[in-house]
Amino acid sequence: MPETFRFAIRVYYEDTDAGGVVYYANYLKYMERARTEWLSSLGYELSTLESVEGIVFVVHRVEIHYRSPAKLGEKIDATLTLVELNRASMAVEQDIVRGVELLTHARVALACVDRANWRPKRIPAPLLERLERLP
Amino acid sequence: MPETFRFAIRVYYEDTDAGGVVYYANYLKYMERARTEWLSSLGYELSTLESVEGIVFVVHRVEIHYRSPAKLGEKIDATLTLVELNRASMAVEQDIVRGVELLTHARVALACVDRANWRPKRIPAPLLERLERLP
Amino acid sequence: MPETFRFAIRVYYEDTDAGGVVYYANYLKYMERARTEWLSSLGYELSTLESVEGIVFVVHRVEIHYRSPAKLGEKIDATLTLVELNRASMAVEQDIVRGVELLTHARVALACVDRANWRPKRIPAPLLERLERLP
Amino acid sequence: MPETFRFAIRVYYEDTDAGGVVYYANYLKYMERARTEWLSSLGYELSTLESVEGIVFVVHRVEIHYRSPAKLGEKIDATLTLVELNRASMAVEQDIVRGVELLTHARVALACVDRANWRPKRIPAPLLERLERLP
Repeated sequence: MPETFRFAIRVYYEDTDAGGVVYYANYLKYMERARTEWLSSLGYELSTLESVEGIVFVVHRVEIHYRSPAKLGEKIDATLTLVELNRASMAVEQDIVRGVELLTHARVALACVDRANWRPKRIPAPLLERLERLP
Repeated sequence: MPETFRFAIRVYYEDTDAGGVVYYANYLKYMERARTEWLSSLGYELSTLESVEGIVFVVHRVEIHYRSPAKLGEKIDATLTLVELNRASMAVEQDIVRGVELLTHARVALACVDRANWRPKRIPAPLLERLERLP
Repeated sequence: MPETFRFAIRVYYEDTDAGGVVYYANYLKYMERARTEWLSSLGYELSTLESVEGIVFVVHRVEIHYRSPAKLGEKIDATLTLVELNRASMAVEQDIVRGVELLTHARVALACVDRANWRPKRIPAPLLERLERLP
Repeated sequence: MPETFRFAIRVYYEDTDAGGVVYYANYLKYMERARTEWLSSLGYELSTLESVEGIVFVVHRVEIHYRSPAKLGEKIDATLTLVELNRASMAVEQDIVRGVELLTHARVALACVDRANWRPKRIPAPLLERLERLP
């Protein structure tokens, strides 16, 4: 079973809307924070990948299901599991959970692109190998 | 062929990120603006539906494909086509386009819920009839 | 009396928070939209100033007073009056109003900087002259 | 010398703009996170103050100076020092710092208001006493 990464998030006013709950687009922010911290936990910083390797991971597809809302002040987690890995792309499953309760689930497909021309580019070999070795 | 609603949007700094293009979550903001203005064009305001009818439309599922990015200063459009209509839910197809070029495409499923308990509630009859009469 | 520029804004869910009104940081977004459209109305696009002239206007100081909140669905205006103009900086007074009611008032100080090194740079002569000729 | 509270923040793509740095309005988000966590560290949750005590702290004035920008991936801190305390209002000084470097400084004036009518209301006695006892 693949390993799941978990990142803690607190819900602030900035995240909510007049409906009293987290605004639907903001779950995508939470999910990107988790992707950033996941790569960081593997030793890779997005800013370095961009400035040194010239690559950016761009989202090309998201399927997101909203089950139950997160509310102001709550402490929730954003999780991440790598479910697909190719030379220039990957897909992750991401949940937003409050304790054991699933609030939001998404599958996010990412492409590795060249910063200069936005064309697909191979994931740098050391990072690709690191991802392949994930349990 | 169903009618497509179109709403003009300008890309500001607030919408972009360090990648130089519109941040991926912000297309969902554009799409909600279009949904709000579409209902408004039919004579229904979200704030009135909430305060008078006690209902809120909540997004329960989004499938979004990112093809090409929108950039700072660009004038783009968010479109909307109603593709499914039930008593307490609907689905819309929404595009972000720059002229005739498709930048982002999404299918958004919405549920009509009771503001008090977040349970499904029938779309108010006059609005439902108005939606059924759409070409 | 200096001329005041006015730009129409609609309040969407994305702008509000769980307090039921526009989130305090988002008035700064409205004000930047007005600054962008003001320059645009004078014939200058921020994106062109950046790519062609290599300059960016950065905010270095804001004083903002919140008097009364804007709410979901409201149609408000962001205004702008140029109150100070120097070779490499300017200051504008900006209001958020609902009809004749003042909701928020700010004074915003902007510096013209070189895109490459973030150092102060003269406002391009044609733009400076255009600003000096404003009534 | 009054005690300074400090809260760690990471800069994500969501925070940045096409200028490559944190968008100017987003520093206000960081500052509110710090205010929320400061009250939380004193034993008070905003959501409880609202639901149980019926009060909300609203910002009525901000003076903010931008000195140097924060960038993607950086780890910064938002600090807070209480500098003024009245029965129904307070003021805090807040900095955004990267290590010992000051990036942004603000003075934020807050009013305690009744959630029902947005009128000034006394800060609940136990919280007021807790704030008065701060070193």
